[in-house]
Amino acid sequence: MDKITVTGFRWAPPFAQGLVRDLRVRWALEEAGLPYEVGVIDLDERNSEAYRRKQPFGMVPVFESGGRGMFESGAIVHQIATRSEVLMPADAAGRADTLAWMFAALNTIEPPVFGLFAIDLLHGQEQWAKLRRPTAVDEVKLRLGQLAACLDGRDHLVDRFTAADILMTTVLRFIRHTDLVAGFPGLDAYLKRCEARPAFQKVLGEQIEGYARNVPMAA
Amino acid sequence: MDKITVTGFRWAPPFAQGLVRDLRVRWALEEAGLPYEVGVIDLDERNSEAYRRKQPFGMVPVFESGGRGMFESGAIVHQIATRSEVLMPADAAGRADTLAWMFAALNTIEPPVFGLFAIDLLHGQEQWAKLRRPTAVDEVKLRLGQLAACLDGRDHLVDRFTAADILMTTVLRFIRHTDLVAGFPGLDAYLKRCEARPAFQKVLGEQIEGYARNVPMAA
Repeated sequence: MDKITVTGFRWAPPFAQGLVRDLRVRWALEEAGLPYEVGVIDLDERNSEAYRRKQPFGMVPVFESGGRGMFESGAIVHQIATRSEVLMPADAAGRADTLAWMFAALNTIEPPVFGLFAIDLLHGQEQWAKLRRPTAVDEVKLRLGQLAACLDGRDHLVDRFTAADILMTTVLRFIRHTDLVAGFPGLDAYLKRCEARPAFQKVLGEQIEGYARNVPMAA
Repeated sequence: MDKITVTGFRWAPPFAQGLVRDLRVRWALEEAGLPYEVGVIDLDERNSEAYRRKQPFGMVPVFESGGRGMFESGAIVHQIATRSEVLMPADAAGRADTLAWMFAALNTIEPPVFGLFAIDLLHGQEQWAKLRRPTAVDEVKLRLGQLAACLDGRDHLVDRFTAADILMTTVLRFIRHTDLVAGFPGLDAYLKRCEARPAFQKVLGEQIEGYARNVPMAA
């Protein structure tokens, strides 16, 4: 078994704790039962030349396995899923459905959801954010309603828990500071169901404990 | 050979022509040499119950093959790429790199790029859009600069043309109304290199011809 390392930030401010994207990779590894180590970088290290060779955009996570590095959390989670049927069915149709819902999480749901996160938590004091917020909320509600309609009594996006649920759960958490998901009871139950998984609770606790150990002197 | 159908819109307004996402799927099919038919829906048909069963978010494209439907253009292009080495290397490492850059196109580059498209072409008259524009441009420039640095003399994102270049090209086209890509000569050359491919020129012409045949009476 080759050694796997997942790199995240040494510390993140409280509003981002539990949302940083190494979380989804660590969750996938726990579900798959693959051992791994956690690496950390300082916030300013992400712009170093050495780190940019691993992650061209200066973001986290970076995934290293068998001497090869990989970036983009969606692609990393897919890579892990190809190693474990816990995360993705073995048949071609099940794999295609899983990947479709992975892209739906990151390319259809995340843009409006992360847009609202940015409005509220990154740009909250700016005039444009105040003016934009009502229609940004409408755009989120539209997508959440469609997603809720699509789940329609099912427990997971595909027939059973897959890597797509990992991405969708971590995307929906970007608006945990609002009651928007709670407005769709089926979707709210789905989110709580995924978050209740022992593997998620374990990595969430570990990510937050890591930050607690590394609070910067000035923070 | 099973029959493949790609569904897009019967017509799109001029500002969207050449940008609608069935284009990237048609491009991938042309590169792969897979025969396909083009289906169309009216703009208001996307909210019908029948269509929602194929595409939960009322968007295009829908891909149908072997009696199965698929949505999310990123996943569809990947599905096509699994059928053709023209679009994705056969080895595991090459496949992982291709998928990483596919996610990078849709989850790292597209959000700021499409954000600026929306500011300029969907919300241009709104006060928030005017206030937001300067920082939105900065966010686009940051990502374009990182992407340009990453290409650094290479012709394509991975070692040679892949499905990732299809997604990146169609993403960068969302800001064709600006001179932002031209500000990074290497990236500009990359975009022009991809757009010059005969398969792209063919499907672009066909998409626009299709719209020209279907101009609504009122338009």
